[in-house]
Amino acid sequence: MSYQQLEQHQQRLYRLSHLGAICGWDQAAVMPQGGNEARAEAMAELDLLLHTARTAPQLAQWIADAEAEPLSELQRANLHEIKRQWQDATLLPGDLVEALSLAGSRCEHAWRRQRKENDWAGFAPNLEEVVRLSREVATLRAEALSVRPYDAMLALYEPGMTSARLDVIFGDLGQWLPGLIQDVTTRQRQTQPLQPRGPFPIASQQALGQEVMGLLGFDFAHGRLDVSSHPFCGGVPTDVRITTRYNEDEFVSSLMGIVHETGHARYEQGLPRHLLGQPVAEARSMGIHESQSLFCEMQLGHDPAFLNLIAPHIARHFGTQPALAPENLARLYLDVKPGLIRVDADEVTYPAHVILRYELERDLIEGRIEVADIPELWDAKMQQWLGLSTKGNYRDGCMQDIHWTDGSFGYFPSYTLGAMYAAQLRFALERALGASLGTLVAQGRLADVFGWLQQNVWQHGSAFDTDELVRRASGEALNPQWLRQHLEQRYLK
Amino acid sequence: MSYQQLEQHQQRLYRLSHLGAICGWDQAAVMPQGGNEARAEAMAELDLLLHTARTAPQLAQWIADAEAEPLSELQRANLHEIKRQWQDATLLPGDLVEALSLAGSRCEHAWRRQRKENDWAGFAPNLEEVVRLSREVATLRAEALSVRPYDAMLALYEPGMTSARLDVIFGDLGQWLPGLIQDVTTRQRQTQPLQPRGPFPIASQQALGQEVMGLLGFDFAHGRLDVSSHPFCGGVPTDVRITTRYNEDEFVSSLMGIVHETGHARYEQGLPRHLLGQPVAEARSMGIHESQSLFCEMQLGHDPAFLNLIAPHIARHFGTQPALAPENLARLYLDVKPGLIRVDADEVTYPAHVILRYELERDLIEGRIEVADIPELWDAKMQQWLGLSTKGNYRDGCMQDIHWTDGSFGYFPSYTLGAMYAAQLRFALERALGASLGTLVAQGRLADVFGWLQQNVWQHGSAFDTDELVRRASGEALNPQWLRQHLEQRYLK
Repeated sequence: MSYQQLEQHQQRLYRLSHLGAICGWDQAAVMPQGGNEARAEAMAELDLLLHTARTAPQLAQWIADAEAEPLSELQRANLHEIKRQWQDATLLPGDLVEALSLAGSRCEHAWRRQRKENDWAGFAPNLEEVVRLSREVATLRAEALSVRPYDAMLALYEPGMTSARLDVIFGDLGQWLPGLIQDVTTRQRQTQPLQPRGPFPIASQQALGQEVMGLLGFDFAHGRLDVSSHPFCGGVPTDVRITTRYNEDEFVSSLMGIVHETGHARYEQGLPRHLLGQPVAEARSMGIHESQSLFCEMQLGHDPAFLNLIAPHIARHFGTQPALAPENLARLYLDVKPGLIRVDADEVTYPAHVILRYELERDLIEGRIEVADIPELWDAKMQQWLGLSTKGNYRDGCMQDIHWTDGSFGYFPSYTLGAMYAAQLRFALERALGASLGTLVAQGRLADVFGWLQQNVWQHGSAFDTDELVRRASGEALNPQWLRQHLEQRYLK
Repeated sequence: MSYQQLEQHQQRLYRLSHLGAICGWDQAAVMPQGGNEARAEAMAELDLLLHTARTAPQLAQWIADAEAEPLSELQRANLHEIKRQWQDATLLPGDLVEALSLAGSRCEHAWRRQRKENDWAGFAPNLEEVVRLSREVATLRAEALSVRPYDAMLALYEPGMTSARLDVIFGDLGQWLPGLIQDVTTRQRQTQPLQPRGPFPIASQQALGQEVMGLLGFDFAHGRLDVSSHPFCGGVPTDVRITTRYNEDEFVSSLMGIVHETGHARYEQGLPRHLLGQPVAEARSMGIHESQSLFCEMQLGHDPAFLNLIAPHIARHFGTQPALAPENLARLYLDVKPGLIRVDADEVTYPAHVILRYELERDLIEGRIEVADIPELWDAKMQQWLGLSTKGNYRDGCMQDIHWTDGSFGYFPSYTLGAMYAAQLRFALERALGASLGTLVAQGRLADVFGWLQQNVWQHGSAFDTDELVRRASGEALNPQWLRQHLEQRYLK
């Protein structure tokens, strides 16, 4: 049967990708600097090999044949994902892929210096080239998938999502979020958190991080915690590698970074293990992946009950000081402050950063604005959402992110979709378990919490499309009101 | 040109092998236990891919064509190695390779338990199957290479070496080594070394190890030191991964283990970097590789001048105690004691362990003895060489090594060939630099020592055959008298 041949083909791709995943982790976490050139060549050779395999000429026929074969529901879902990945791999001409890859590398490489130097004039022409090629990509993908150009980019990260729907969802946030930000910041002005006094030795931070990972049910027989300059979750589902970075003067953000990556890791570790190797066993989308990390970090990790739970661990490693009392930890972690930098943003202001970028990249890809328009629009939107100016400050404005430099247009919405899914899942979980997340934590029922996620999210991999997955778990499709309710409960009650 | 096609083909193999080398290191050094099954599958998939590439049907023609093309001397040497590797990859039928691989895995796997249980009766049938298949391999290889069956196995590790020559060389050792062992042990009976008192914290042992690696010129921009249960030198020449294991109660053997692996590592790091990817840039043979590790460990590392050099480092990490004085360190490291276990043997008794195994495996492969004969012959040879009995003690006798369990017949001689090459190179180096190794160390001229090895061994990769390499470096072919002179100077003067 052609379907079986496809399954074997996927298994082979999965095994070879495994090597790339581990070597990629190695490159970021432990590789000595001088090893980079040969490593990059080895990774490129593997990429070429995988690309050749993913676009092998016999696949079109196998897929067409398999569609006519009698398949179980799960096999059909798998075939759907196989076909989607095959389309993504084949629908662009090789020279366009190569041109974008080259332009992206060049733009990203120069950006690392240009950002520091606030050099918009140097950056803009490189970005223009990336945008030009990305528009070609979007147009070709749009034709093949019969959707709008930007939606064809979205489909790479959030299959099924559309900009028409995002406009509604993000439009809804636009109605209440700016007011909420104002209310919260006004209210918080009355009490300032105490800042913990270091140093916080790195070995202790690491031990603390591993303890907290243990509380969160991370499976150390199938994963590790290491260090890299940009934290990530990599490896393979049977061996998940998360990383963090430490700073002796500060442990608060590093610790919560570990909690965030642990959320990604538990999703990967919880994917249906008997199906690993098949696309149906992969994580559903970037937004759902982010929902799991944000569930851990924001819904759970920032809950006062969770901070109560880990406060004794913190005290055991760093001693007692007023700043490490649970109430002050909550005040530290729940501090809301509009700022220029997305990655430093709290959960209340974060969506503003994302929606701003979404609106710009949508219009950029569909040709309604040009690269030259970005700085002024960025500044106007930052004023509107957060009351902050980025005039002349490209570094902390439109040059702060890596995403556009290599053409990853369509990725940004995943962050806020993730936050909304996380809130929606959390309320669904509370209804199902009959108690608030805080109460569940206080009662020592973390295993029930993660058991619910395993049952309702992780074990399904990509068996359902995102809407169906969310509907089965929560009873309705994506609804931004749950994020609103979460934020109002946490910050205004 | 066909030669160019071969070069590109090799480059591709090299890049893909890189991924396997790093994932192999990862598996031994950092992988969590639960990751093993998927890793093994990924590595097997890569092995299959590499095997297919190494036996691609067009290679025979390319090689034949290239042999008629005008090539530089270096290209011709490279072609010679390409052809040799291609022959090794192609001359066995796939089902024999697979059968041996399966029988080897089964035998090795069971051996891990059987050895502990001293279960020769359980082990023997598995080994018989491995021997049966290995004899088939040896016969087929022998026909293709027109050499004796055992020599065809030797060629996998020591191309160009023959058992006729080993009989002469090891026969020579047989003349003087037993007497030397007696003389040394009699003499050493008068003074016993003091045993250092621990604990020796692992973090300090690691820091000390890295300092000593630094003294030995290990390039940390192109390599790392990590931990694994069986120390090894892995990775790739631009990123060499060495490992050790630590024991809080003891640092002496772990430290010298690091020195040993550093010898392997410097050879790899010193291979001709501009040629990496081509077989001509690879290490010459197992014996030459071992000569570099033994040069570092035995010739240099056990020299009292070197122990003088590192004694202050040891003292800084572990404080002062009489057992850590340089003279006592020398006494510790130069202690000679006949024992049952090869891997624990000192440099004086080590060749006895090797020659014993050589004689058995040579006769086993060529059908003059059978598996059932091994225990009695082992015991007789241990009595003869070292005056020790292994009667009924299979665990510490003929079941102690992993090599035969997976069919690596022909490997053992490399250890003692390495020791002999190391001694020969050391005397050549002393003549060239006009001072003894001890004097060079005392004068702070370690860079000259390694510069000489770079010049005379490392940079040549596989450009010359082993005899030619050794002749160019030392003025003569392999001569076991240099090992004798070294041992007599060190232990009887």
